[in-house]
Amino acid sequence: MEEINGNIASPLGFSADGLHAGFKRKKLNFGWIVLEVPASVAGIFTTNKIIAAPLVLTKQCINKENKIQAIVVNSGVANSCTGEQGHKDAFRMQQLAADKLHIKQQLVEVASTGVIGKPMPMSILEEAISKIVVNGNADDFAKAILTTDKDTKTCVVTEHFNRDLVTMAGVAKGSGMIHPNMATMLSFITCDANINSKTLKHALNEVVDVTFNQITIDGDTSTNDMVVIMSNGCTNNKEIIHNSDDYEKFKRMLEHVMKDLAKKIAKDGEGATKLIEVSVEGARNSSAAKMIAKSIVGSSLVKTAIFGEDPNWGRIIAAVGHTDTHFNIDNIDIYIGHIPVLKPSSPIDYDNEEIQDIMSSGEVKIQIHLHNRDCNGKVWGCDLSYDYVKINALYTT
Amino acid sequence: MEEINGNIASPLGFSADGLHAGFKRKKLNFGWIVLEVPASVAGIFTTNKIIAAPLVLTKQCINKENKIQAIVVNSGVANSCTGEQGHKDAFRMQQLAADKLHIKQQLVEVASTGVIGKPMPMSILEEAISKIVVNGNADDFAKAILTTDKDTKTCVVTEHFNRDLVTMAGVAKGSGMIHPNMATMLSFITCDANINSKTLKHALNEVVDVTFNQITIDGDTSTNDMVVIMSNGCTNNKEIIHNSDDYEKFKRMLEHVMKDLAKKIAKDGEGATKLIEVSVEGARNSSAAKMIAKSIVGSSLVKTAIFGEDPNWGRIIAAVGHTDTHFNIDNIDIYIGHIPVLKPSSPIDYDNEEIQDIMSSGEVKIQIHLHNRDCNGKVWGCDLSYDYVKINALYTT
Repeated sequence: MEEINGNIASPLGFSADGLHAGFKRKKLNFGWIVLEVPASVAGIFTTNKIIAAPLVLTKQCINKENKIQAIVVNSGVANSCTGEQGHKDAFRMQQLAADKLHIKQQLVEVASTGVIGKPMPMSILEEAISKIVVNGNADDFAKAILTTDKDTKTCVVTEHFNRDLVTMAGVAKGSGMIHPNMATMLSFITCDANINSKTLKHALNEVVDVTFNQITIDGDTSTNDMVVIMSNGCTNNKEIIHNSDDYEKFKRMLEHVMKDLAKKIAKDGEGATKLIEVSVEGARNSSAAKMIAKSIVGSSLVKTAIFGEDPNWGRIIAAVGHTDTHFNIDNIDIYIGHIPVLKPSSPIDYDNEEIQDIMSSGEVKIQIHLHNRDCNGKVWGCDLSYDYVKINALYTT
Repeated sequence: MEEINGNIASPLGFSADGLHAGFKRKKLNFGWIVLEVPASVAGIFTTNKIIAAPLVLTKQCINKENKIQAIVVNSGVANSCTGEQGHKDAFRMQQLAADKLHIKQQLVEVASTGVIGKPMPMSILEEAISKIVVNGNADDFAKAILTTDKDTKTCVVTEHFNRDLVTMAGVAKGSGMIHPNMATMLSFITCDANINSKTLKHALNEVVDVTFNQITIDGDTSTNDMVVIMSNGCTNNKEIIHNSDDYEKFKRMLEHVMKDLAKKIAKDGEGATKLIEVSVEGARNSSAAKMIAKSIVGSSLVKTAIFGEDPNWGRIIAAVGHTDTHFNIDNIDIYIGHIPVLKPSSPIDYDNEEIQDIMSSGEVKIQIHLHNRDCNGKVWGCDLSYDYVKINALYTT
């Protein structure tokens, strides 16, 4: 597998673009992906009970059609909690885009992200849709879906399946309201492999559990999250069958792309100055390992300590003890970077300068060894800074 | 029932005091309560699996003896995660205080709060204990137990039981690591009523669920929390029997004191500028009501919006939807103060100035109506400010 420079339209048969519409004052805020031919598709949607109108529609179309030929996205207005009118507006968004592109309406997916409760400004949307062109600047798509993100998030990989070179590309947006189990995050993944929608769904479900579902920014989940993967078969490779060697290879590509995007989302969490990676090893089972890791990376006290570059492991052990899991409280090791600070369950003297080097780097790794069984878990998050407060205190007003 | 000015030694038969020792540079940091005669006692301790040494000892003594005659507390060093030495130090703290006061060792309780993982400075502790005097300035006890709290938290009430006037007093410390189910919070409640330890425990357990367990500052729990209530019978009232009218009256006193302290803890949460009160009404059951209310008051996005005085109800509804509960998503009302902003599940236009008045007050009330059944829940929390980050980024270093 090779990571290459590229964009969401790097796989064969895709085009994409973005533009500035009136949804927000600055920045691109409307984007689209268009496929030459309908592709296999799979999606995962927010676990929040309040689901935005465009998600309800997209989920329904994907599940019914199992095919996709275009996706249009706006940022700035979420079309969430907008009542019956919101559903009508999402439907109209889909209909207008389908008419513009001469594609069957049910093959056009819609997504929105931004402020909840604000009605969709339909005249702005209509004008934006009228400007859709095929074969534009695909780099702009990754920009158009952002909200408070500082950077675009893109990952492109290639891999040989026999003689056929398959390309997979992913983009994502994240920032606030990010938590395990999908939350204000959009991610779109394109691929030119030959794989059916059912197999694609298997792969997506397996990979999301060790990637996007393992990041947390602030514990909130949103009403608008979705990950959509589409694969159009333009490579003409032999069809990838569930549980075959090719399937495993395809999953490794997908895991590489989604893990890369997940870490980029965590690193670009609202106000973040550091990426935090927490590994829990030796847990009784993998759900306990994940729960403990998430408790640490989700703790406001741990996050502020890391922002302050303070190796306050007392807050780490408190976050471990706070979980509803079983472990031996007398045999816990904690490492910050490679330096043991607690072992076994007793404080270890450490070199202050050495640990300050780790704390002041852009990526802080925390390892917990529970010496229980052999199950592991890894999650990513970010620190909690003044800027997180600033960004979120002033978001709508 | 009457609320009066007073302190933790206002009930008959109690004395208390505090002093400055070397646990921290500034502020009082060592305090004690001494009883003329042993009293009935009940305690509730942290649910964190990592339990600090003084808590292990105090819990054991209270459960074994069912009596208490003194309690000594230090702030600045938590004596938590301090290995076998920590347990020896807690035992020595109890022993030295008992010797100084000429009280049976098992009737002396110990508590600590502060930095986790730092060994107890025994020479400082020994010197502090040597200075214990009976009949000192009881107001200083409430000061001595504080860590990052800005204000002392005290509540004193009196109530007639037939002709006998019973006095009950409570003090608390809170600030960081506060979450439902007891977390870095200490509270001591004194009373001169005649009630046995078993009945006291019933009352404490019932009342804690609608008071201290309904506050959340940052979702973390600590290794050192405890609430201890002691009642010495000095009033000579007729013994209060479980489930009698007097018991209900006693519980109302306790609820008044503990709710007052809980709200004071929430209002003085680290960096807090506002108290947030969330009421959920019409839920399917009371645990769903509490879970939804806690999800709202625990949401970093809601907390930062309230800090920014921004009526961003989209984040409130997202926090409702984020919970693992059942409700009708099409029939939710949200009020900020008395102003409806969502009803039923659709945005309502509101007067901007009117809502700004509410958002800029020191106490923001949020009400949710689910129109499901008739179960309610109420929780308290605080906003998330720059100062929360500042305080916690710089705590140990």
